[in-house]
Amino acid sequence: MNSCTAAVLTSYKHTLELRQFPVPEPGPGEALVRVEMAGICGTDVHLADGELNIPLPVILGHETVGRIEKLGHELERDWRGESLSVGDRITWASSIVCGECYYCRQKRQPTRCVSRKAYGISYCANEAPHLRGGYAEFILLRKGSSIFRIPDAIPTEAVVGAGCALTTVLHGLERATVTLGDVVVIQGSGPVGLAACAVSLQSGASKVIVIGAPQRRLEFAREFGAHGVISVEEATTSEARRQMVFDQIGPYGADLVVECVGRPSAVPEGWELVRDGGKYLVLGQYANAGEVLMNPHTITRKQLQVIGSWGFEPRHVDAALKLLENKHWQSRFAAEVTDRYPLQQADAALQKARLGNGGKTVITP
Amino acid sequence: MNSCTAAVLTSYKHTLELRQFPVPEPGPGEALVRVEMAGICGTDVHLADGELNIPLPVILGHETVGRIEKLGHELERDWRGESLSVGDRITWASSIVCGECYYCRQKRQPTRCVSRKAYGISYCANEAPHLRGGYAEFILLRKGSSIFRIPDAIPTEAVVGAGCALTTVLHGLERATVTLGDVVVIQGSGPVGLAACAVSLQSGASKVIVIGAPQRRLEFAREFGAHGVISVEEATTSEARRQMVFDQIGPYGADLVVECVGRPSAVPEGWELVRDGGKYLVLGQYANAGEVLMNPHTITRKQLQVIGSWGFEPRHVDAALKLLENKHWQSRFAAEVTDRYPLQQADAALQKARLGNGGKTVITP
Amino acid sequence: MNSCTAAVLTSYKHTLELRQFPVPEPGPGEALVRVEMAGICGTDVHLADGELNIPLPVILGHETVGRIEKLGHELERDWRGESLSVGDRITWASSIVCGECYYCRQKRQPTRCVSRKAYGISYCANEAPHLRGGYAEFILLRKGSSIFRIPDAIPTEAVVGAGCALTTVLHGLERATVTLGDVVVIQGSGPVGLAACAVSLQSGASKVIVIGAPQRRLEFAREFGAHGVISVEEATTSEARRQMVFDQIGPYGADLVVECVGRPSAVPEGWELVRDGGKYLVLGQYANAGEVLMNPHTITRKQLQVIGSWGFEPRHVDAALKLLENKHWQSRFAAEVTDRYPLQQADAALQKARLGNGGKTVITP
Amino acid sequence: MNSCTAAVLTSYKHTLELRQFPVPEPGPGEALVRVEMAGICGTDVHLADGELNIPLPVILGHETVGRIEKLGHELERDWRGESLSVGDRITWASSIVCGECYYCRQKRQPTRCVSRKAYGISYCANEAPHLRGGYAEFILLRKGSSIFRIPDAIPTEAVVGAGCALTTVLHGLERATVTLGDVVVIQGSGPVGLAACAVSLQSGASKVIVIGAPQRRLEFAREFGAHGVISVEEATTSEARRQMVFDQIGPYGADLVVECVGRPSAVPEGWELVRDGGKYLVLGQYANAGEVLMNPHTITRKQLQVIGSWGFEPRHVDAALKLLENKHWQSRFAAEVTDRYPLQQADAALQKARLGNGGKTVITP
Repeated sequence: MNSCTAAVLTSYKHTLELRQFPVPEPGPGEALVRVEMAGICGTDVHLADGELNIPLPVILGHETVGRIEKLGHELERDWRGESLSVGDRITWASSIVCGECYYCRQKRQPTRCVSRKAYGISYCANEAPHLRGGYAEFILLRKGSSIFRIPDAIPTEAVVGAGCALTTVLHGLERATVTLGDVVVIQGSGPVGLAACAVSLQSGASKVIVIGAPQRRLEFAREFGAHGVISVEEATTSEARRQMVFDQIGPYGADLVVECVGRPSAVPEGWELVRDGGKYLVLGQYANAGEVLMNPHTITRKQLQVIGSWGFEPRHVDAALKLLENKHWQSRFAAEVTDRYPLQQADAALQKARLGNGGKTVITP
Repeated sequence: MNSCTAAVLTSYKHTLELRQFPVPEPGPGEALVRVEMAGICGTDVHLADGELNIPLPVILGHETVGRIEKLGHELERDWRGESLSVGDRITWASSIVCGECYYCRQKRQPTRCVSRKAYGISYCANEAPHLRGGYAEFILLRKGSSIFRIPDAIPTEAVVGAGCALTTVLHGLERATVTLGDVVVIQGSGPVGLAACAVSLQSGASKVIVIGAPQRRLEFAREFGAHGVISVEEATTSEARRQMVFDQIGPYGADLVVECVGRPSAVPEGWELVRDGGKYLVLGQYANAGEVLMNPHTITRKQLQVIGSWGFEPRHVDAALKLLENKHWQSRFAAEVTDRYPLQQADAALQKARLGNGGKTVITP
Repeated sequence: MNSCTAAVLTSYKHTLELRQFPVPEPGPGEALVRVEMAGICGTDVHLADGELNIPLPVILGHETVGRIEKLGHELERDWRGESLSVGDRITWASSIVCGECYYCRQKRQPTRCVSRKAYGISYCANEAPHLRGGYAEFILLRKGSSIFRIPDAIPTEAVVGAGCALTTVLHGLERATVTLGDVVVIQGSGPVGLAACAVSLQSGASKVIVIGAPQRRLEFAREFGAHGVISVEEATTSEARRQMVFDQIGPYGADLVVECVGRPSAVPEGWELVRDGGKYLVLGQYANAGEVLMNPHTITRKQLQVIGSWGFEPRHVDAALKLLENKHWQSRFAAEVTDRYPLQQADAALQKARLGNGGKTVITP
Repeated sequence: MNSCTAAVLTSYKHTLELRQFPVPEPGPGEALVRVEMAGICGTDVHLADGELNIPLPVILGHETVGRIEKLGHELERDWRGESLSVGDRITWASSIVCGECYYCRQKRQPTRCVSRKAYGISYCANEAPHLRGGYAEFILLRKGSSIFRIPDAIPTEAVVGAGCALTTVLHGLERATVTLGDVVVIQGSGPVGLAACAVSLQSGASKVIVIGAPQRRLEFAREFGAHGVISVEEATTSEARRQMVFDQIGPYGADLVVECVGRPSAVPEGWELVRDGGKYLVLGQYANAGEVLMNPHTITRKQLQVIGSWGFEPRHVDAALKLLENKHWQSRFAAEVTDRYPLQQADAALQKARLGNGGKTVITP
């Protein structure tokens, strides 16, 4: 085993390229992991299109499950304190933070660490040890990575199906809490929207309405437990959607609206769906998709809380795995994985994900 | 005493008109109050310009101190449970809520009561008993008004100088709390900005910077205790102001930024002054001044809490009066009252307030 | 219809006495209600034993469902704003508060209203209109009562089965919130303990352990969804119970422990079941059962939050009815009603409830 | 410089012994510090009496200021990110945590870290490098210590005068927050009580009452800004003290009561001083002083929050230093230092501190 294959984004809006890299030996605190399944996140599509500036060439893939191939010296326990061995099936938090900067220490906002780096996003594949993304046969985890041994009862599909969407939602809904009995409206029926549906219900929402498309994803939402779904293909205007929401939840609006769309225009539309004094969680605007006209008077008059949330912390991976021990959610998230591609067809996989018309697309090297 | 004078807004953008009204007898639970001092709020200028729809003709004036002339049957105690007598100097919450609607009961957001009515704003002067605003010799308080007897030690100027600005700020900063040691930036140096300065400092802010104009108001801010002031007449661009803020508080931004300006463009400018994970309170957008281009990605990326707050509740009047027992704040707020006009010159008073170049203008009938 | 029967507690520790009372006409804002089912709460047993001072003679019964027999003038809508008509099936908050005192207004703690009065507890049956408790053919609801029309889909058994236990728990767990994923231990398997199990699970607890007795009640706990139960008849010492808890949840203790026992000794035992930095909700000590030796060093060292909660507000009845729209919880709470007695056997019903060996005992006049 | 002196607690209830230790070279990440001033904390007296189990012999002293004598490799910045140089005047958090255990990671309660170790408490002086306490000429700070360079404007007396009392209070009042306008009662007038007075006032308390003794300490409380003081030497019963408190704050009790006494009996006495629905912070029970009879019914009926807090985190040292930049608090805390002893008289210093009749006793090697 001297070299391995990885799919590399070499320039924006181009096809992924298969390259060979040497398989490294893990140093102290590091782990060499054989990738079992790598999820394709909607963010990967944005990255491939150049919507965020990343150090090309990059091996994409930040929601990954693999098995430990080799363990570096001094890496004996996972984040939870459980022992780690060669052969263990693991996942890991995509980001590593410094623990020392203004945001890490003084403000306890580690997701805003000034030197945060994420696997599959922030590492240039030209720099050794190269293997820092999930679209590859192997990945080398840095010292200080937050590794989680996956309990046997949780299938790999559930972990990758939940992906970074679930951890992102767990962070977001920690900041904009669901209170028992809340009526929740979710804008978007992609993986983030579905995860928001799951976490809202599990946290005691009495009613969850999902607005999205296409039909297949709205069916997922139903299967996740949404009490109502609204198709943006059928209700094509803000006003039409608002009317359909109010028909289902009454004229005051929702206690909490979760934006999981990513288009700026969703935000002013969403504010009108919140009851006065309610909460609006801006979760989908990870990429910078530009400005939109908004009226700040709405925030004052409706007495809103508009809450942002960026990424997640290792403890949200811990929470996600705990949620996936629940058989109901386990099967729902596993069922999201609809399309599997070998590593050699990584680019086809990315194009499939771009269509957004199915469930989750994954690469199984 | 058969009739009395009031200054009436009869149509938008016209001079206030002096009219005579019969002096009513208070019914059960009502109080007839002889106005001692009526503050002119910046909102009054907006109302006179027609920026909110009100039932003209209206007697303006919603921040008022007076003495009880006659007490209706069954009105024996003020909001705090203290006894009320003819001759007592009082103030009152400007709004009355129903206590029964969805917002009052189920969501405990009484400032969003569906049938809330405010003295000096929501009552047509053509309808008996006519006297429902402060720009008048007398005002008749409805049954259910939240009346506060003013302790002797607090001068009338302090109560009117603080006005609805202080109660609005107390509500807003209850929703967007100041934590001990916080760095606070305040956009705006009008009465709301100055009150935000006072409440932030009193709540433990370690540093308060006020951005505003004109110079006289920035001097007020200094006297209120602001550690730094930035003149929008000198720093005329967003970028220049941002740089001056960062020079004073460091490159990450403030823990809390309070918007007390009222122009929509202040909001996107303000977001850039908040540190990641910080709070932004939208307090000044009471009137609807229209849309502005904003980038919701900023909320996600900076992990902000953007919080709105509308008006205030009677308990915030209680809190304001408690704060005014503090000699320091008492004298600061009293000093805000710089211009006094008799009722006959109510229109001149309103025009003076419109200039916004001094402290607070008041009418002393 | 000139007179009706009620079961009256005339002196502590004596049998309930059947008395006749005139059936009153409802005045303005009042409602005459024909009792359909009156729950016997554990508190009723304490009251009958004289553990709280009440104005004897008293018609007990504070968790009641009935149908409107006559509506007084001006009573047209229920607490939620829905219209009320003769024949409607309703329940109501057991207490009425003044809305004006220090606790109601200034501190927003209406459950501590200085003049709070509760049906079935605080009204002397010798004073007209006499009918102020549920153990009777009729009850006359005062003006200002918080009445709730019960949706047709919710059976009476579910409402009475949930009783004041569910509303008390909803208030308590609003103060000591369950966070998604929390491990919760509940001390006590009576109606309050079962309701705590339901609300904890519905709020996202990942594991709930119930400690109680007898076996029948632990079976209820299992049916409610408890992941584990511990019998105090089998584990007869604090140490044994602690060991069994730790065997099930690990050595650190629970994120939240809810005391639903009522014996003071449960509290120091319970503190040892909470993880450091966790929460302990004292919910069961409604009656004054005396002092117990406790070590306050435990609160400091374990960095606990020990939270009390007294009674509930009308909005918790609203929340309870919303929870009972959920079919799962509806059937669980309805199944708690195991023993029905006619009004003529009210005393036998109370003795049955005293045994505490079954589910809930109710009176069906 | 081959050896130095330290005062060592060799067995409980014995005089401190002066011993010589070799002066070590700092290894990577370590710092050798020349002690300038070491505070004697009340806890040191408890430790010397054997109330907590520590690994004797121990060099006491956990609130210390010194100057960097030598810097180990790779230690270039303090906790705040500021550069460190030989000669810098510094202080440091007394404890180091693992950052990896259940409490550090999963529950974010680092003060309950399972392997937390504190300078001056948890290190045996027999084990190299020996110098791990403040009662010494030198102390060697471990890699991973949270070091703070002290701004020039803050005198050493202010830092040691504030000591661990201020950081403990900052942590405690972060958990049991002071809200603007709160009435606060503080039980105890030692360093913790005085710091609680300072932080309460700085956080917006409208009235602070301190209960304590002797007279000199109550004068300190007045100088710190307490609105009222109550002497336990004059009011010798719980009932008398309660009456005096209510005379000053009215019959409902305080919004927040802070226990800074350390005797268990203070806790049930203190509960009676809190208004219903208020908060009680148990801050003084660091040592285990045994059980006391308490009635948990009080917690339920009064709807209390009883909150514990253990030690502090590095960010509380940061907050303390920020507070000490305030000239007012700086001079108040500096004035607490009333008694200075050379290291050779460390035992006499400890005995002086035991008397508790002055301000703070310090050792100035």
